[in-house]
Amino acid sequence: MKGNLLAVVLWGAASSAAVAGPVESSPTGSVAAAQPYAPLFKSELERSRSFVDQMMVAGVVVPVPRDPGGGYTHEQHKRNFKAIYEGGQLYRITGEQKYVDYVRDMLLAYAKLYPTLDEHPARKDSQSSGRIFWQVLNDAMWMVDSIQGYEAIRSRLSDADRDNIDENLFRKAAAFLSTGSAVTFSKIHNHATWATAAVGMTGYVLGDKELVDIALLGLDKSGETGFLRQSELLFSPDGYYTEGPYYQRFALKPFVVFAGVIEKNDPARKIFEHRDGILLKALRTTIQLTYDGYFFPFNDAIKDKSLQTDELYHGVAIAYRKTRDPGLLSIAQWQGRTVLTDDGKLVADDLAAGKAGPFPFKSLLLSDGPEGNQGAVAILREGDSTSGQALVAKNSSQGMGHGHFDKLSWQYYDNGNEIVSDYGAARFLNIEAKEGGRYLPENESWAKQTIAHNTLVVDEKSHFDGDVKVADRIAPKQLFFSDAEGARISSAVIEGAYPDTRFTRTLALLSVDGISAPLALDIVRVQSDGTHQYDLPLHYQGHIMRVGFDTDANNAARPVLGTGNGYQHIWVDAAGQPQGQDGFVTTLLDGRFNTYRFVPQQGAETILAEIGANDPDFNLRREPIIIQRVRSAQNTTFVSMLESHGRYDGAAEQTVGSDSQIKSISHESINGLDIVFVETLDGKKVALAVSYDSDLEKKHAVKVGDQMLNWTGFAARIDLPAGKAKR
Amino acid sequence: MKGNLLAVVLWGAASSAAVAGPVESSPTGSVAAAQPYAPLFKSELERSRSFVDQMMVAGVVVPVPRDPGGGYTHEQHKRNFKAIYEGGQLYRITGEQKYVDYVRDMLLAYAKLYPTLDEHPARKDSQSSGRIFWQVLNDAMWMVDSIQGYEAIRSRLSDADRDNIDENLFRKAAAFLSTGSAVTFSKIHNHATWATAAVGMTGYVLGDKELVDIALLGLDKSGETGFLRQSELLFSPDGYYTEGPYYQRFALKPFVVFAGVIEKNDPARKIFEHRDGILLKALRTTIQLTYDGYFFPFNDAIKDKSLQTDELYHGVAIAYRKTRDPGLLSIAQWQGRTVLTDDGKLVADDLAAGKAGPFPFKSLLLSDGPEGNQGAVAILREGDSTSGQALVAKNSSQGMGHGHFDKLSWQYYDNGNEIVSDYGAARFLNIEAKEGGRYLPENESWAKQTIAHNTLVVDEKSHFDGDVKVADRIAPKQLFFSDAEGARISSAVIEGAYPDTRFTRTLALLSVDGISAPLALDIVRVQSDGTHQYDLPLHYQGHIMRVGFDTDANNAARPVLGTGNGYQHIWVDAAGQPQGQDGFVTTLLDGRFNTYRFVPQQGAETILAEIGANDPDFNLRREPIIIQRVRSAQNTTFVSMLESHGRYDGAAEQTVGSDSQIKSISHESINGLDIVFVETLDGKKVALAVSYDSDLEKKHAVKVGDQMLNWTGFAARIDLPAGKAKR
Repeated sequence: MKGNLLAVVLWGAASSAAVAGPVESSPTGSVAAAQPYAPLFKSELERSRSFVDQMMVAGVVVPVPRDPGGGYTHEQHKRNFKAIYEGGQLYRITGEQKYVDYVRDMLLAYAKLYPTLDEHPARKDSQSSGRIFWQVLNDAMWMVDSIQGYEAIRSRLSDADRDNIDENLFRKAAAFLSTGSAVTFSKIHNHATWATAAVGMTGYVLGDKELVDIALLGLDKSGETGFLRQSELLFSPDGYYTEGPYYQRFALKPFVVFAGVIEKNDPARKIFEHRDGILLKALRTTIQLTYDGYFFPFNDAIKDKSLQTDELYHGVAIAYRKTRDPGLLSIAQWQGRTVLTDDGKLVADDLAAGKAGPFPFKSLLLSDGPEGNQGAVAILREGDSTSGQALVAKNSSQGMGHGHFDKLSWQYYDNGNEIVSDYGAARFLNIEAKEGGRYLPENESWAKQTIAHNTLVVDEKSHFDGDVKVADRIAPKQLFFSDAEGARISSAVIEGAYPDTRFTRTLALLSVDGISAPLALDIVRVQSDGTHQYDLPLHYQGHIMRVGFDTDANNAARPVLGTGNGYQHIWVDAAGQPQGQDGFVTTLLDGRFNTYRFVPQQGAETILAEIGANDPDFNLRREPIIIQRVRSAQNTTFVSMLESHGRYDGAAEQTVGSDSQIKSISHESINGLDIVFVETLDGKKVALAVSYDSDLEKKHAVKVGDQMLNWTGFAARIDLPAGKAKR
Repeated sequence: MKGNLLAVVLWGAASSAAVAGPVESSPTGSVAAAQPYAPLFKSELERSRSFVDQMMVAGVVVPVPRDPGGGYTHEQHKRNFKAIYEGGQLYRITGEQKYVDYVRDMLLAYAKLYPTLDEHPARKDSQSSGRIFWQVLNDAMWMVDSIQGYEAIRSRLSDADRDNIDENLFRKAAAFLSTGSAVTFSKIHNHATWATAAVGMTGYVLGDKELVDIALLGLDKSGETGFLRQSELLFSPDGYYTEGPYYQRFALKPFVVFAGVIEKNDPARKIFEHRDGILLKALRTTIQLTYDGYFFPFNDAIKDKSLQTDELYHGVAIAYRKTRDPGLLSIAQWQGRTVLTDDGKLVADDLAAGKAGPFPFKSLLLSDGPEGNQGAVAILREGDSTSGQALVAKNSSQGMGHGHFDKLSWQYYDNGNEIVSDYGAARFLNIEAKEGGRYLPENESWAKQTIAHNTLVVDEKSHFDGDVKVADRIAPKQLFFSDAEGARISSAVIEGAYPDTRFTRTLALLSVDGISAPLALDIVRVQSDGTHQYDLPLHYQGHIMRVGFDTDANNAARPVLGTGNGYQHIWVDAAGQPQGQDGFVTTLLDGRFNTYRFVPQQGAETILAEIGANDPDFNLRREPIIIQRVRSAQNTTFVSMLESHGRYDGAAEQTVGSDSQIKSISHESINGLDIVFVETLDGKKVALAVSYDSDLEKKHAVKVGDQMLNWTGFAARIDLPAGKAKR
């Protein structure tokens, strides 16, 4: 029998050659059926049985590759690798021979097809072609699942079948994914992680040390590329993946699944301790990058992605095995799913045993870059992670090709909803009518452009003039972060997004007595050597209830705001010149009111707009925007605030707090220091003072009107006596 | 003691004078606390305790009336009557004196305030002013609840307090609502139902037979107006309320609550048997007028109204007491709520005892008008009422002032969503920023206009030229209805919506082998003496995935479609001239695809548009429309089809059936008969044949090409042999 040179264990497998790793479930035979499974595992087993049995009824269907993402052959091959994986697990759990037969027949069909394949007919010039799929990435995903299914039944095959599948399918596929796709395999990129995981796991199953070595250390085994190097370069020391949460989720599966296999086959390597436990840290960080279970959708991201995804079922189960962290059980509970492995069984058992505890969602600063010095993502939270507030400051680096030109952008969540929103990617995944499910042209013309984000645009151009090579070299700098109770603050600066202009953004969540949700304050301080037009857009979800200032509405014809860099996609509904305290817009979303309030600058204009112009194929969602515009200035400061308030209950016909509870907001800039004053309708007064001084011990004092304000360090909240505040 | 001349029982009350009606719960004292309550009643009790206890902490707050709907005094008085009602019930259930004290103090405060009140300062000229509220309607609602709360504690008061409250509050309020508001009180309208219920129930509590008599029989006691007459004229023989489901729900509460009281005080009247049991029939019909628990939102309707509403908690409980229908228990279960009465207790007990059964949602024809000859609402259903299909044909009469000019309009539901949608009312209930929560100007300029609905518009004018007086005189005629398995069909005609044009609409749900959801077919046959422009709009929910025909898009400036009758609110995105089989648009909503497909007429144009033009106050939701336009024709026939298909699962990254499964649709009009042929991609062929002949026994034969089609009656589905159908 081949393949037992190394200890071949992927998931505590049924192979009689298994010599390492925990094997908790009965390896073969009907005794398993008598075991009482915990509810989560039981339902997973039933779901899987139902799926695989349905696939078995349809028979082995392995079509010649033809279609791109979303097309028939694409989806069929996806179903197949899922069935191969799950068929293997079902055999391991139930011992039923029919699963061996089915997985074997499927793999024999692939072993017959695979050697006949060349470039995929639907390949795109911009991406490496796969054999089974249009992208080599999908081939790697096919293999990561299929090799695990194969491993579970391999020892039960005849020598002839095993040799056939080993040689004609997996060895050939491993060769294609490694030496045959050397450029992809050698990248420091999630595509390479999938490829190295596929090849390395195949190496363990086939007993081929060479495959394992190149997977771990790169084709030249120097360690400059390969899985280990990827785990060092793709995650920051805080476990943040530079492409952002959507791809962090996606990249996580090959990392943790392959690591789980390495741990079992080669425990001496202590893979989970590698680089200070980076892989488990990355898993926890992935979970932190969510609100109400949904990933913060910045950069290229499909917004319907939540923790309910295959990658995280695996990730949570593997991490729980290693850590026994009760918080992970509550995540599994929210997911309502687990995996059909011993790890999944452990999760289900411990969940049933009541061992779950809350996952500690919290305010966090997550550094970006392999060394942690390429900017950061700051998360400010108040209340729980499903109905409370979360403010996300995206002060991270560009994050390569899937990155957006949105330095110092932000998002805001409240009441289970994204209020200040990020468009995510312009893409309809797997929907053929939409460019075969690929990224749409509007991903470049809109979604990546700066104006599509909640950050500063100078002269209607995107950051770095939209050049990703330049963007990848220049990261923001996180200046300050505090998660102090009642005044959580983040501040960062970006220099180089525009040739002669730098800007600093300070975002804060301030809790104020008598105000139901903390106020989200926003100070964008712009300094330039030249004179420019400055736009500060706010992309929001909700329906306008009240506009504080007079507007001229484009009633009878709706013009477009600009001609390029995303501006060509914006319809202008109305514009006005706010004055004094009338600079606000109140909106309603899902029974909750939100007021966006700002300090009008001299001569500034506010534009109410909507996406959708120059979109003949209806590729864009129609979403509203508020744009603060300063037509011509050198230095300027945008001071804004987001206030969530009140409640509209349609069923009970009750409305409370539908109007803002704020009386005034004002701003003073004194000797380069910024102070923002907020007064509530019932007279509470609070200030946010920013010194921009990195000396956290330094004391600052500023006189505003006849009042002296004192604070220590970079930024602070100052509570003012009622009736004594300036103005 | 006053007030015991009549048997005073509202809810099996604590009054020692109670001599009629079932009293199941312990009337007074702490024994109640020891009773084990079923979960639904228990949670209701806890919810109510929490609310009333919170109100009690705030003390008795009875402000001088000032604000319109949504304003502070309006909302406070609403909270108060809820607290009075619930406080009374809590005393009855728990026997705790604190509830007596609180309700008494509240009512004493009202007894002091009420005699000082005159016209409400926020009254609108178009509506009768209340005293406590801006509309007399709200005063009646206040009284319906308050008198029930009062009744529960009345026997526990000192004579002085009782006299004070009797005379200064309830007798004065009853006088105001009856003789003082004679016009409203004497209407055949839901406002009058609330008023008569309030006055009649007050009559029972105060032992004032005069009040009861005028409530039941009108101010002159002739029976020409009053509660009994209302129950005869406001509901059709099928229990349909002419204003539509939203107001049917609203009107239901005073009907069933007052009826419950009449039944208990005056059982000989057999109120629930009145007019063949119309009140219970109306309750069941109200429930039938929902999809996934939400009311069909035609006419003036706020779309967030579902069965989870106070009116239906009462309605279900009272109806269950009378009928013991297990289907009502499953409605209560869906509601998750009940009322704090003996009836609510019975519902909770029987639900806990497992007596619930499914509510029989079904295809139904509901006649409109007191005699049932003012048109009808046809509901065609397939599958369950939460994820299956429902097609609603609105062939009913205008329904008075809240009616929309939308004769023969339709809606379509699938997968838990409204796909072919009705805008409902342009109103933000109780939100002060939106015209004080009243109907918005756009309710007239958009929501009521014909183009805002899924029905024919001639020459860009609304039905009846938007004149409600004319509209109220002319109803559609239901020609045919069949709920035959696999071919549910409705057909109706309207003459008089336009001076020289009549149109007939046939809607059908056809189940076809191999197609996952039934196809919704739509034939609009227009006959005119003159030459006109015909528009057939489809208002839909979803994002466009694919447009079958070429379009010219308005990329850089978005024009308005027209100048009045709602057309001024429509932005034109694109338009094209579909040919042959390219007349279709596929959209995506909530993981489900929908294709709207139609037979292009000679020279016809299709417009893709969106609401929102001429809307400077952002009062309209931005929703998309497809308009089929025939610029100039005398007679014409629009043939269209809605096909729900496929599945998009973002979490699992699986997409199936994203494109239509239909190969072709075609239409033949032969000797005034219409035949529509549909062929699926896998060769299934089916026809819908319409003879328009009301003789249901008559046989029809039509030769199309070389094929003879035979059917019997008005309309039928004909399955054609594969490969033999025309074309």
